[in-house]
Amino acid sequence: MSSNSFGTIFRITTWGESHGKAIGVVIDGCPAGLEISEEEINVALAKRAPGKNDFVSPRAEADLAVIYSGVFEGKTTGTPISIIIFNQDADSSKYEAIKNQLRPGHANFTYLEKYGLFDACGGGRASARETACRVAAGAIAKKLLKHFKMQVTAFLNSVADVEIKNLPAQDSLRALVDGSPLFCPDDGIAGRMMEKIEEAKTVGDSLGGTVGFVATGLPVGLGDPIYEKLEAILAKAMMSLPASKGFEIGEGFNASCMTGSSHNDFFVKINNKIQTESNHAGGTLGGISTGMPLCGRVAFKPTSSIKLPQESLDLQGAPVIFQLPEGSRHDPCVAIRAVPVVEAMVALVLADALLLNRSAKL
Amino acid sequence: MSSNSFGTIFRITTWGESHGKAIGVVIDGCPAGLEISEEEINVALAKRAPGKNDFVSPRAEADLAVIYSGVFEGKTTGTPISIIIFNQDADSSKYEAIKNQLRPGHANFTYLEKYGLFDACGGGRASARETACRVAAGAIAKKLLKHFKMQVTAFLNSVADVEIKNLPAQDSLRALVDGSPLFCPDDGIAGRMMEKIEEAKTVGDSLGGTVGFVATGLPVGLGDPIYEKLEAILAKAMMSLPASKGFEIGEGFNASCMTGSSHNDFFVKINNKIQTESNHAGGTLGGISTGMPLCGRVAFKPTSSIKLPQESLDLQGAPVIFQLPEGSRHDPCVAIRAVPVVEAMVALVLADALLLNRSAKL
Amino acid sequence: MSSNSFGTIFRITTWGESHGKAIGVVIDGCPAGLEISEEEINVALAKRAPGKNDFVSPRAEADLAVIYSGVFEGKTTGTPISIIIFNQDADSSKYEAIKNQLRPGHANFTYLEKYGLFDACGGGRASARETACRVAAGAIAKKLLKHFKMQVTAFLNSVADVEIKNLPAQDSLRALVDGSPLFCPDDGIAGRMMEKIEEAKTVGDSLGGTVGFVATGLPVGLGDPIYEKLEAILAKAMMSLPASKGFEIGEGFNASCMTGSSHNDFFVKINNKIQTESNHAGGTLGGISTGMPLCGRVAFKPTSSIKLPQESLDLQGAPVIFQLPEGSRHDPCVAIRAVPVVEAMVALVLADALLLNRSAKL
Amino acid sequence: MSSNSFGTIFRITTWGESHGKAIGVVIDGCPAGLEISEEEINVALAKRAPGKNDFVSPRAEADLAVIYSGVFEGKTTGTPISIIIFNQDADSSKYEAIKNQLRPGHANFTYLEKYGLFDACGGGRASARETACRVAAGAIAKKLLKHFKMQVTAFLNSVADVEIKNLPAQDSLRALVDGSPLFCPDDGIAGRMMEKIEEAKTVGDSLGGTVGFVATGLPVGLGDPIYEKLEAILAKAMMSLPASKGFEIGEGFNASCMTGSSHNDFFVKINNKIQTESNHAGGTLGGISTGMPLCGRVAFKPTSSIKLPQESLDLQGAPVIFQLPEGSRHDPCVAIRAVPVVEAMVALVLADALLLNRSAKL
Repeated sequence: MSSNSFGTIFRITTWGESHGKAIGVVIDGCPAGLEISEEEINVALAKRAPGKNDFVSPRAEADLAVIYSGVFEGKTTGTPISIIIFNQDADSSKYEAIKNQLRPGHANFTYLEKYGLFDACGGGRASARETACRVAAGAIAKKLLKHFKMQVTAFLNSVADVEIKNLPAQDSLRALVDGSPLFCPDDGIAGRMMEKIEEAKTVGDSLGGTVGFVATGLPVGLGDPIYEKLEAILAKAMMSLPASKGFEIGEGFNASCMTGSSHNDFFVKINNKIQTESNHAGGTLGGISTGMPLCGRVAFKPTSSIKLPQESLDLQGAPVIFQLPEGSRHDPCVAIRAVPVVEAMVALVLADALLLNRSAKL
Repeated sequence: MSSNSFGTIFRITTWGESHGKAIGVVIDGCPAGLEISEEEINVALAKRAPGKNDFVSPRAEADLAVIYSGVFEGKTTGTPISIIIFNQDADSSKYEAIKNQLRPGHANFTYLEKYGLFDACGGGRASARETACRVAAGAIAKKLLKHFKMQVTAFLNSVADVEIKNLPAQDSLRALVDGSPLFCPDDGIAGRMMEKIEEAKTVGDSLGGTVGFVATGLPVGLGDPIYEKLEAILAKAMMSLPASKGFEIGEGFNASCMTGSSHNDFFVKINNKIQTESNHAGGTLGGISTGMPLCGRVAFKPTSSIKLPQESLDLQGAPVIFQLPEGSRHDPCVAIRAVPVVEAMVALVLADALLLNRSAKL
Repeated sequence: MSSNSFGTIFRITTWGESHGKAIGVVIDGCPAGLEISEEEINVALAKRAPGKNDFVSPRAEADLAVIYSGVFEGKTTGTPISIIIFNQDADSSKYEAIKNQLRPGHANFTYLEKYGLFDACGGGRASARETACRVAAGAIAKKLLKHFKMQVTAFLNSVADVEIKNLPAQDSLRALVDGSPLFCPDDGIAGRMMEKIEEAKTVGDSLGGTVGFVATGLPVGLGDPIYEKLEAILAKAMMSLPASKGFEIGEGFNASCMTGSSHNDFFVKINNKIQTESNHAGGTLGGISTGMPLCGRVAFKPTSSIKLPQESLDLQGAPVIFQLPEGSRHDPCVAIRAVPVVEAMVALVLADALLLNRSAKL
Repeated sequence: MSSNSFGTIFRITTWGESHGKAIGVVIDGCPAGLEISEEEINVALAKRAPGKNDFVSPRAEADLAVIYSGVFEGKTTGTPISIIIFNQDADSSKYEAIKNQLRPGHANFTYLEKYGLFDACGGGRASARETACRVAAGAIAKKLLKHFKMQVTAFLNSVADVEIKNLPAQDSLRALVDGSPLFCPDDGIAGRMMEKIEEAKTVGDSLGGTVGFVATGLPVGLGDPIYEKLEAILAKAMMSLPASKGFEIGEGFNASCMTGSSHNDFFVKINNKIQTESNHAGGTLGGISTGMPLCGRVAFKPTSSIKLPQESLDLQGAPVIFQLPEGSRHDPCVAIRAVPVVEAMVALVLADALLLNRSAKL
């Protein structure tokens, strides 16, 4: 089925359940000769890790990646890179009380119907814990992109109706995002987001949000028509994330309210290089990168796990009041911790597109 | 590269340029024993065909599909189904004047950079003409779905800021869509859309829009975690369409402004069947179909080809005023003719998911 | 299923039944900028064509390939290349008498069981006619290899127990093969093969044979460990040919009777280039090309269609004496016409390996 | 690249170097609900393990598999099954002396050229140690086959020129193979094989051999035309094994010396079931299983690592006498330990074919 794999040349396969012994990722197709260390991966994982502040889940996973193969004397060898993250703070006992109930907004109903059985502890395979593997692999993808002078930055774009109005300039974005507990590059907006989140937490509820991304330094030519357009692969990547409900590139849904004359980006020559004056398209034309910044947004629903009691059924179909166990640990807004994951997925998509593009011409 | 293929088990491969001899599609993996006729395919193609009214391109392609293989005595045989549509009204001469210019919003710049050469006549391979092949294949996918009691309906959801407010009930939707020249199930809204389009045409401009879809009759279990979630595949399918800029499922971007308690769909038992009371999720949980209607939307940018003059460059980078040749034929709003294509893509995604799901259990 | 496709980057998809309207192939992933003409493809097809002499089937197909897409002004564009060969001499009427009988050595039994129905005319999809598509695609692959100074030559190695003893030197092999009606580079051996074939034809029987191949000019590095070893892909390619029963590389089965000291090829430096003194391995180590000639052999069973009467069953399982209709046209030894097909498959494998190898290093 | 993956629906991905921390395999696409235990996997691994007797390598790996994911309360869940085997007896120090030399018959030359660097300890990724992962995955595949009443048995068919003449009947084969230290079901032949091996060991040389396999209980219909014929997939599987040089099915190369009338298997009805009287084809027609036993053979070259000194070059191209370090541990005949690996690969191929066949009909 390969439903746990992503990518064509630079291809990842992830495995593991939230409360199992470990989770892991195998990266196949990374070119040989790339310098990579466990430390770089762990720096990336730390960003996604829970337990850092009041705005994310208090689960305290150390999330330490160990490289088991594919790297020799600090460099990739062209053989599969196996990375394992052992689970440490997996406490399944809390879930005992609700293990026979259908969780609103969760996947235990569909997994049970599809497979006939489900290792539901902590969400099992359906848990967002799997995204740690994406971040680990993404760290290697980002290193590859860096070698070719490309950068990717994701950021928290909105929480509920609080949204960034003006994105800071490219050269300061990275630092601003890394300096924010919410990965939000605008301090004022971030403050209002925190207030919103505190309000929701107080009443035992959760909030949705959107994550934006910008990738720069792309050559013209990444992405493959017709079905492997760069935005198509990005869309698949993003909609494969837990809780994501929408994807857009460039002007996105806003483009549906524009006219051709206002949406078209005009070609101009700047510094002897052909580019476009505006970037409504978001960095692609015909599914192929234009060399302009690649930018878009992903919508995340509010966290399904909330403290408020909810009507539901047990596995036999009898009505129950579903109530999360005391001490359950969940993110009040999944969009926050989704930021490093979105960044990883953009990097994975671009690393693959970069390698695929090597076959375009004689 | 397989970048011209889509699907895993039920897999299509398309070929052909807008102004070449023909375009075509090979469908591999359709189960044997399905009744299918050229007529059924041509009925589907007729919906996408240009030249029908004032709101679509006047290019007068007959778009007749011929089945060259894979069907024997009216039934599929399990071997590849090759369908060819010969091009008839391909007039490349008009494009002579602009063949050395970069077309705003078009792909000739990126194709040229990626491949070093480009058969640009009528948009070449980048033309939306390719989508006729998707519709032909989609007709077979829809027949397969019908065998399993599943239906897909797409519709025009908005043009510019004119949007449907209340979608008609499932049982009347199909007829309303088919009865509308714009594929818009709400006559009043359709009237206002037409006014908007006429206005844009008058000034030589174009409009964007959104297309919605609803699929019903799905069993629980379609879609494969983690990277082949049903919404991920749908997103890829939709973002592979020319001019699409965004995709959302269920509440989509609106979900980012909701709370967990308002977004979660509660499980209830109706007619002895477990389902959800509301359907904010849009028909999936954890990437797997819940059995509820699968619904979402796709955003399309305004048509890039407009009559208004635009600043641009020639292939050598010198400034030009880009002006479409007199008599060029284009859609004032691509979202309209995208409706049958979106419908086809949903059908292709579901047909594949249906077959893949046969391997889920012992 | 993609079971009608072959290759990863340079990927072909074939379609069509023996007695349908046409057969065809779509080539996806050929790099842009390669010069190719229909004439080159037809020269290759002519070699495989039946009806040329007494040693092959008298079916008189012209086998003219038409390029429908992907080539512009004589060069590939990077978009899918669609090639169609229309069927001309398809006479299904002769098969009427045997259409309800199980043909010994043929696939109608297994197709019927697998799919529930079968378009059996002339062997339908199971006919070796499909290999014409491989040859057409192979002609393009060979052109790509030529651009990178690589050559492939296949030849008839044996018919029954008549086998070539000493293969002519590389530089004369191509001409000798092309000059032989049997594609056998040794005139004396070819004469004895012809005698054997005449004998078999006289009694209404058929013969098996083996086909050899040599590819030269390969760089070191083609082929990908672990499961995509060059010999693994070659083996799959060859065993996907109708009537093939065995594949070997280098010493092949003979290696099982050698010792390590006699089989190991020693490394030497010649003209400042590291290579091996002997080439028992046949051109690969660890599944990766060594730069030495890539060579191997394919075993073909005797043609299943023979004039002699054979015991069999009808589709209902009742005993019948199976007898080919008067005037049926079949090859007395399929290995002969398999020669250009083997050559095409080697070329397809190498073209793909060449492109895949572009991703091996930074 | 996915070059470390095998299979379409039932798909494995292996990772790890011979002397790294561990090796492992991820199995994606195994249907949910299959009972499986670590013990079953370890029983299979024990057969492949070195160190058991005088005829295999003395390296003493315990080869204990640990299941890290995908199994819940003793049953597969449909999520990826991650199996890890930690390396214990990896002594790289012995290889210090030869690490800068090209090893005759080994892959260090080609890996270095392809990737620019190579973790060569113990053969690194190119080591046959990777096949332990295949055996672990194969144990699960065999369990799946067992559920559907299918069995696979591989056996040592020949060592040098000592070959089995008459294969024992199916029902006794399994026990005879398991009871033999060489996996050879014929005690007399096994004795002569052992003598041959002792002779070779005495002079510091190695021997080649062939491995046979038989699979029974297959339904009609496994395998997919055209490029995914059952024998094509088997051939790829076998030729992906280290040291394999040839593959054949049914009569194999011998078929090239037969006539059509002697090779064709006649259809007969036995116990109201259509089958063939003989089985020269080896269990397939047109690439699809006939329901008859699937049988074939794989040729293995003599072990490349021998104690005898050999002429070679160092990495800089200067002549050296290559001599394995004192105490190096190698198999005198790799074909012996290849037996359980061949068996695993046949099982993997059949498990995948079984699942793929679920999509053949409506």
